Amino acid sequence: MKALVFHGADKLALEDRPKPLIVEKTDAIVRITTTTICGTDLHILKGDVPSVVDGRVLGHEGVGIIEEIGTDVSGFHKGDKVLISLITSCGRCDFCKKGMYSHCINGGWLLGNSIDGTQAEYVRVPLADTGLYLLPPDVDDEAAVMLSCILPTGMECGVLKGQVKPGDIVAIVGAGPVGLAALLTAQLYSPAEIIMIDLDSNRLEAARTFGATQVVDSTDGKAAEKVMAMTHGAGVDVAIEAVGIAATFDICQAIIAPGGHIANVGVHGKQVEFHLEKFWSSNITVTTRLVDAGTTQMLLKMVQSKRLDAKKLVSHRFKFPDIIKAYDTFKNASREHAVKVVITAEK
Amino acid sequence: MKALVFHGADKLALEDRPKPLIVEKTDAIVRITTTTICGTDLHILKGDVPSVVDGRVLGHEGVGIIEEIGTDVSGFHKGDKVLISLITSCGRCDFCKKGMYSHCINGGWLLGNSIDGTQAEYVRVPLADTGLYLLPPDVDDEAAVMLSCILPTGMECGVLKGQVKPGDIVAIVGAGPVGLAALLTAQLYSPAEIIMIDLDSNRLEAARTFGATQVVDSTDGKAAEKVMAMTHGAGVDVAIEAVGIAATFDICQAIIAPGGHIANVGVHGKQVEFHLEKFWSSNITVTTRLVDAGTTQMLLKMVQSKRLDAKKLVSHRFKFPDIIKAYDTFKNASREHAVKVVITAEK
Amino acid sequence: MKALVFHGADKLALEDRPKPLIVEKTDAIVRITTTTICGTDLHILKGDVPSVVDGRVLGHEGVGIIEEIGTDVSGFHKGDKVLISLITSCGRCDFCKKGMYSHCINGGWLLGNSIDGTQAEYVRVPLADTGLYLLPPDVDDEAAVMLSCILPTGMECGVLKGQVKPGDIVAIVGAGPVGLAALLTAQLYSPAEIIMIDLDSNRLEAARTFGATQVVDSTDGKAAEKVMAMTHGAGVDVAIEAVGIAATFDICQAIIAPGGHIANVGVHGKQVEFHLEKFWSSNITVTTRLVDAGTTQMLLKMVQSKRLDAKKLVSHRFKFPDIIKAYDTFKNASREHAVKVVITAEK
Amino acid sequence: MKALVFHGADKLALEDRPKPLIVEKTDAIVRITTTTICGTDLHILKGDVPSVVDGRVLGHEGVGIIEEIGTDVSGFHKGDKVLISLITSCGRCDFCKKGMYSHCINGGWLLGNSIDGTQAEYVRVPLADTGLYLLPPDVDDEAAVMLSCILPTGMECGVLKGQVKPGDIVAIVGAGPVGLAALLTAQLYSPAEIIMIDLDSNRLEAARTFGATQVVDSTDGKAAEKVMAMTHGAGVDVAIEAVGIAATFDICQAIIAPGGHIANVGVHGKQVEFHLEKFWSSNITVTTRLVDAGTTQMLLKMVQSKRLDAKKLVSHRFKFPDIIKAYDTFKNASREHAVKVVITAEK
Repeated sequence: MKALVFHGADKLALEDRPKPLIVEKTDAIVRITTTTICGTDLHILKGDVPSVVDGRVLGHEGVGIIEEIGTDVSGFHKGDKVLISLITSCGRCDFCKKGMYSHCINGGWLLGNSIDGTQAEYVRVPLADTGLYLLPPDVDDEAAVMLSCILPTGMECGVLKGQVKPGDIVAIVGAGPVGLAALLTAQLYSPAEIIMIDLDSNRLEAARTFGATQVVDSTDGKAAEKVMAMTHGAGVDVAIEAVGIAATFDICQAIIAPGGHIANVGVHGKQVEFHLEKFWSSNITVTTRLVDAGTTQMLLKMVQSKRLDAKKLVSHRFKFPDIIKAYDTFKNASREHAVKVVITAEK
Repeated sequence: MKALVFHGADKLALEDRPKPLIVEKTDAIVRITTTTICGTDLHILKGDVPSVVDGRVLGHEGVGIIEEIGTDVSGFHKGDKVLISLITSCGRCDFCKKGMYSHCINGGWLLGNSIDGTQAEYVRVPLADTGLYLLPPDVDDEAAVMLSCILPTGMECGVLKGQVKPGDIVAIVGAGPVGLAALLTAQLYSPAEIIMIDLDSNRLEAARTFGATQVVDSTDGKAAEKVMAMTHGAGVDVAIEAVGIAATFDICQAIIAPGGHIANVGVHGKQVEFHLEKFWSSNITVTTRLVDAGTTQMLLKMVQSKRLDAKKLVSHRFKFPDIIKAYDTFKNASREHAVKVVITAEK
Repeated sequence: MKALVFHGADKLALEDRPKPLIVEKTDAIVRITTTTICGTDLHILKGDVPSVVDGRVLGHEGVGIIEEIGTDVSGFHKGDKVLISLITSCGRCDFCKKGMYSHCINGGWLLGNSIDGTQAEYVRVPLADTGLYLLPPDVDDEAAVMLSCILPTGMECGVLKGQVKPGDIVAIVGAGPVGLAALLTAQLYSPAEIIMIDLDSNRLEAARTFGATQVVDSTDGKAAEKVMAMTHGAGVDVAIEAVGIAATFDICQAIIAPGGHIANVGVHGKQVEFHLEKFWSSNITVTTRLVDAGTTQMLLKMVQSKRLDAKKLVSHRFKFPDIIKAYDTFKNASREHAVKVVITAEK
Repeated sequence: MKALVFHGADKLALEDRPKPLIVEKTDAIVRITTTTICGTDLHILKGDVPSVVDGRVLGHEGVGIIEEIGTDVSGFHKGDKVLISLITSCGRCDFCKKGMYSHCINGGWLLGNSIDGTQAEYVRVPLADTGLYLLPPDVDDEAAVMLSCILPTGMECGVLKGQVKPGDIVAIVGAGPVGLAALLTAQLYSPAEIIMIDLDSNRLEAARTFGATQVVDSTDGKAAEKVMAMTHGAGVDVAIEAVGIAATFDICQAIIAPGGHIANVGVHGKQVEFHLEKFWSSNITVTTRLVDAGTTQMLLKMVQSKRLDAKKLVSHRFKFPDIIKAYDTFKNASREHAVKVVITAEK
């Protein structure tokens, strides 16, 4: 089969690889019909993720058809159309019992990381009973593949950890795919205002069409002042950090109201300064989270009931043989006005 | 009347002052029978709290007898024995409605800060209906005065924000009065282990008698390693910071388990480094809080039902004319083996 | 002034009454510009509410202009346009501190109950600082008056107690005003499905336009069977009882899924049979609540930000001199296709 | 092996049965060293539990040594000393993901119900990875066997569902084993008062030694009046029903304070009257729950850290060949002053 293989920093190749086989009885082999590229894949490509070694098939998002099934998989059958979750979980370790599936001692984020992933014609999905979701016939593949990673990430790390609730003023720093996923899912809790902050005016325009009530261009370094003015000096109830650098975490610190929540979603490479000399007395909460994919089933219901327009995140479409072009487009998201690029099997 | 007056950094004097009068109809005048000194009073004395000006009567903790009462106070009568809360609140602003009484736009921490306080023979208590608690006859004055500030602080900022629950492993960094208050109140939620960390071996011994299951002397800079060894590498579920410097916040960061809570109680003068490069993926929560005194009534019930031995915090006793000696003892807490020093009216 | 006065069962009169005066310094006198009629007013009219005596001015919903203000009211001024809440609260008793304002020992539901109400040209509002809300200029009066009682009732007793959350299947039994208010506010939490159940096909048609995803006509006594079929035998996550009789509570019991919530909103005159022989093992929760109006400020923000179309509840409009006609219309809601009838001041 | 076999109402026999074998690869065979009898076993014996058929080996509580292990069990080894949970769960169905393990579609309460149980020399435990807990060497067998069913039941159905919190007044109706388990575990949340209500004065005396602050003999039918007097007319914050009949549920209804929680633990055979005509306006919550055993690990930590004296529940001890005598004693609990009877393997 064809697969997209990582060969160290900045080296990707579409290669022939043996079709994966059932290894454990709890595995499923899925023929990929739709996949996509995550911001994390770009981190891997830069060589920033040491757990991903030379020779690894990339990708942790996908929709496909079950081709083969281990004898201990009880919830699925050959031929089922399924959504693949980025998270593999055993359901019985202490972390799983707490709903922290991302920290599962027998799983976690494996696909396209420590085992071969979904940017291929076939993928082996371990612990298939918990890692797959049956796709109802009325859910579009492009919408569904947004549920493998990006929407649960925005929802869990941003919206749930931030405790967004009706009437809140929410600010989201970063209008890339994960920030937009937070924007879409925040609306499930009906905040009164959602302020979107980014350097890129195209992304801000997109944010408006995704439901942002106000947008702030932070190019001039005055995002925090603008948000404080918009909120009449009160600040925001929830600030979602969806970039992963000190400057954006600082904006969150500058705009959070007493009693507010800063929910970090971004992947940070460095420590940040945390202003405890200001915050010790202001009843704030700062949270971090790796996506656990515990909301996938719920989000799937929301997509199915037409209350969540997941497909809106898709800006570009490619066929699998052109996946390297898809990476190019996604890497140059600003220039290309790209949000999520979807890649479908050639068939 | 006699009152302890602040005259700028390191200057305190026991002076004659006019007895306070009812100013607002919601005021009460309380004759102080018991007061105590807070770590915050020492901060004021160092000149670190700019809201406290020359001429201010200090003190925000006290028990006494109502001497006079405004016409709009409905819940109390002349002659009632009362506990004075450090927090004044209106009960109707947006912050009060959220239970954030410390941020009340008509109140907050006023006594011994922006208005004259309790280290005097008499004090004027504004918004007496919400700022006073009737003392049941079976509650000891010394136990009661621990409810003005220190026990609600340990409970709310440490235990509630840290979400201590049965079975948890809790670490408290700092065995001073507020750390010990957190230690006492943490036991209301039955954690399996409470590890107390401090530089002072006397305080650690005291911590054992207050219920610590293990103690760690951090003099050698290896507190974090020791805690990780005690927890077999897993770390703690809740880390309570009860000092207010970067080094102690760092210990909390080094020992917190994935999914854990760091509850800051300490008053910080400087920013700290926050290790988002490590924490972005570990599902942790960091909280700050100014004491709101929302738990005072509950803690009073616990003292009354003998389930909370508040009096245990009292290490030294003085008469009011010797209050400057009491400050000396409390300032040299380590040398004097002092926890809370109680000062009672002379008569 | 003119006022609508209750004179015992089935006797209402529009009479001349003295204009109310400030009694307590915390009072405000409000000139009513808009009022409405509640289902509870019809209960009073039937003689079912013994606390309402002969001679009482009815009404607990209203919008108006402050005409006079007590000297201790700090948050409002003469001339302010305000929303009047049905709940009067002191903000300092134990119930208020728990957010149970409806049980305030110095307040609760007083207007049009134990004191004269809002169906008059003027009303005296006690504890005005907590009982009034400043109306932003961009909020329509008709939308605003829906926030006096009906929307907080649907939200608090139905949606919040029922813990509606994204992805849920919710059933609401009763498509009268309070059921429709629950339907509108349930959507703030994005359930996947909202099934509306009633005997009246006009109301069910209205429910569809209010956002119900499915409707069930219960005339044939088979509502429960239909809902179970719609949910493939699983039942619903949340059942909201918005009628107040045994038959509708029974429907809730018949359709609730294991782990589900039955939230009672209806005013019941009789005990019901509760099927503990079925439920003891099914992890359900049954709640009751009197509206506390703790969500009024939030709902006002939602109306102001155009996320909640409160005005939609208004089906009929009258001038104040025709208020008895308005009662007639509302009493015959089914025949008249009435939801909420709004009454405005004449001039 | 010897096993206690059910042969229809009132018929029990200690018989020879083949030793169980591994059936699924996720099974374990455990040699029972300690077991006990549950109130539910008495219900079975009366013929009240139709899922238990003639020929079934009874018992769902036990401690033992793993004798054989399926090839897919990863967390345990032959020779491990283990606690057996009454609940079997897959960890991956929708109910398991919500923590409702008792409703697991691949498990639930199976042992001594739909499959052979623990009152035997050996038992087959399905889904051993989630159904067993490794026993630390410092946990006593008799204490441990209280964690199979009774303590998680009191904790989850009574204390957690009742939301017991520091300062609360809690009433527990029924001082049998499950009521006493609720009494022991309620103390983990430090209520101010725990009032125990029963007909049997011996049990009430026992309740005092288990930590009840007050006891009420309900023989005279005046339990509710007495509790209302004790609480100065306010009622209790939490009422735990631990019997399972209408009369005891009525006591809960009569004593619950506005805002309070009634947590049903008892197994009810009939519907009850629920006083919605009184409760519709009083903000109460009624809950039911089947024990999910989600707290077993936590309770085990509490026993290990000596904060929960589980062994206190054991009143009588028998050797396995005398198990029928043990049943006699337990059936006549009142006469025998029995709480839990423990049965150990002979050798």
